[in-house]
Amino acid sequence: MCEIRQDPTSKEWVIIATERRKRPSDFLPKASPAEKPPFLGSCPFCPGNEKMTPDKILSFPESGSWRVRVIGNKFPAVAPDGSNARQMEQGCFLKMNGLGVHEVIVESPLHNMTLALMNEAHLREVLLAHHLRYQSLAQIPYIKSIIIYKNHGQNAGTTLDHPHSQLVGTAIVPRHLRTQYEFAISYYDDHGSCLYSDLIDRELEAGTRMVLENERFVVFHPFASHRPFETWIMPKAHQASFGESSEEDIYHLTRVLRTTLLKLYRGLSNPDFNLVINSAPVGEERADFYQWHLRIIPRIIQPAGFEVGSGIYINPALPEETAKFMRELQA
Amino acid sequence: MCEIRQDPTSKEWVIIATERRKRPSDFLPKASPAEKPPFLGSCPFCPGNEKMTPDKILSFPESGSWRVRVIGNKFPAVAPDGSNARQMEQGCFLKMNGLGVHEVIVESPLHNMTLALMNEAHLREVLLAHHLRYQSLAQIPYIKSIIIYKNHGQNAGTTLDHPHSQLVGTAIVPRHLRTQYEFAISYYDDHGSCLYSDLIDRELEAGTRMVLENERFVVFHPFASHRPFETWIMPKAHQASFGESSEEDIYHLTRVLRTTLLKLYRGLSNPDFNLVINSAPVGEERADFYQWHLRIIPRIIQPAGFEVGSGIYINPALPEETAKFMRELQA
Repeated sequence: MCEIRQDPTSKEWVIIATERRKRPSDFLPKASPAEKPPFLGSCPFCPGNEKMTPDKILSFPESGSWRVRVIGNKFPAVAPDGSNARQMEQGCFLKMNGLGVHEVIVESPLHNMTLALMNEAHLREVLLAHHLRYQSLAQIPYIKSIIIYKNHGQNAGTTLDHPHSQLVGTAIVPRHLRTQYEFAISYYDDHGSCLYSDLIDRELEAGTRMVLENERFVVFHPFASHRPFETWIMPKAHQASFGESSEEDIYHLTRVLRTTLLKLYRGLSNPDFNLVINSAPVGEERADFYQWHLRIIPRIIQPAGFEVGSGIYINPALPEETAKFMRELQA
Repeated sequence: MCEIRQDPTSKEWVIIATERRKRPSDFLPKASPAEKPPFLGSCPFCPGNEKMTPDKILSFPESGSWRVRVIGNKFPAVAPDGSNARQMEQGCFLKMNGLGVHEVIVESPLHNMTLALMNEAHLREVLLAHHLRYQSLAQIPYIKSIIIYKNHGQNAGTTLDHPHSQLVGTAIVPRHLRTQYEFAISYYDDHGSCLYSDLIDRELEAGTRMVLENERFVVFHPFASHRPFETWIMPKAHQASFGESSEEDIYHLTRVLRTTLLKLYRGLSNPDFNLVINSAPVGEERADFYQWHLRIIPRIIQPAGFEVGSGIYINPALPEETAKFMRELQA
């Protein structure tokens, strides 16, 4: 019999379709990924082509040959122009300027590098760049929400192969996140504790969906995973915003992230995925009700009309089985 | 400058990314679709292979060679077993049986047919099958929500090429739809009118996003289209549920749907798409606050990490431009 589970953070239902059940090994790709060159003359993110992109905002190291480089997005989804005033058209249609900041973090000078295969020091620099830019954007008065994300592979929506992630600060709080904050506040009011912290406790207690943990972070496949191998990484100590992480937190985050990505890389043969960091809204860094978290969403099956029409995901994999598969993989 | 628009039905923001702007003609596929045979011996939906699928629920005509055939889904996401009782695990994790009904509407005996190219009488039979099955499922006491959907093409998540659509009745109201109903109720309380009916009036008034209309239906690209060429079809007269449509409504729906699909087929060279029919929850067929509607979502760009992380869509096409392109196409 199929089972329907509720995501406690969004109250969305997820159908765990055991009738369509797939074993972890069923998700292996049919073709091996195309080999990419380490350098591509036409790639705007390759070293030597820096003039093809907007000016550098930050780099490691600061001068000379860079390992990590942050720039403005040449084709930004939002830009620091205009005000956040809403305009209403015809009494029905609300709109505003596309106010915000959109940056790109070029993660490596090598065109064919990938996060999973970086050494630990390099991956830490990528996360430090995310962190520094998060903190910097959070100082801009009109920025209310900051999303850090990465698209790895065509099925994950990437348009440029060179390894990079992105950071978007918006003057609006996305409705989708606002709804989650509201559920978390309501949970806090009812229980006097943070829903996300309680989830970690329950996941550690159950153990069946755990992938790994270290001193400061837990990695698990959530109870109502929307998609096969959906992976959450959360700090053990309460922390509402990624911007509040210490250097030591980033050190420990790097370690669990690297192992997790390497397990996915080896276990699913370098799957396409999105990586996302969600935080409390800017200005609510001290919120008791929310915990920032990093999610990795492998894009190995395509959401279809049912997902589009209902918002309910059909997940053909059991998170308890995928987590076990991940635990047992060497990395 | 970019523009951020709010979807009045979900209050989700959509970034209309004019900096990344694509003209309608930019969405043409790079490769032409592979030719398919009219019959495939291994296809469970091809005539002669009826034994490969569960028993027939309905067909047109009732006996002899069928043109449209409704069957149970062999690998259902939900099934009519067990109760709708919720169980709570560890005080955090809510779950229930996958209670519901999952049916498949085989739309044509021809393996290589597609809705856009059917004659009008045949397409009407497909919609009549949807309608009859909707009405039948709505009689089952535990069914609370019915979604009709179609996945056309691999990017739309289809796994079987043979033209078919699906119908899922669930014992839960999807959270995503519940939220939309709540906004619609709140709008009704504030304005004394249906948000969706008012939207139609505003769209007809503006005219810029209209694609076509007939006596009973309007077809338009919504103000805050989530994706390029997202198309809505709505009845002009207030009607909360697709199940309440008359035969004459289906006749007029067939005509606008056929023209719309043919324009998409010709204008975008047979794009992959999802088609979805959303209705008020079962039992609220007489609701003043909601209007059923059919949506066509071409799957020509891939949602990426920003969409996954924020729920905000970045749409590189202006609905006013895509609607004009559609209006001017011959069908």
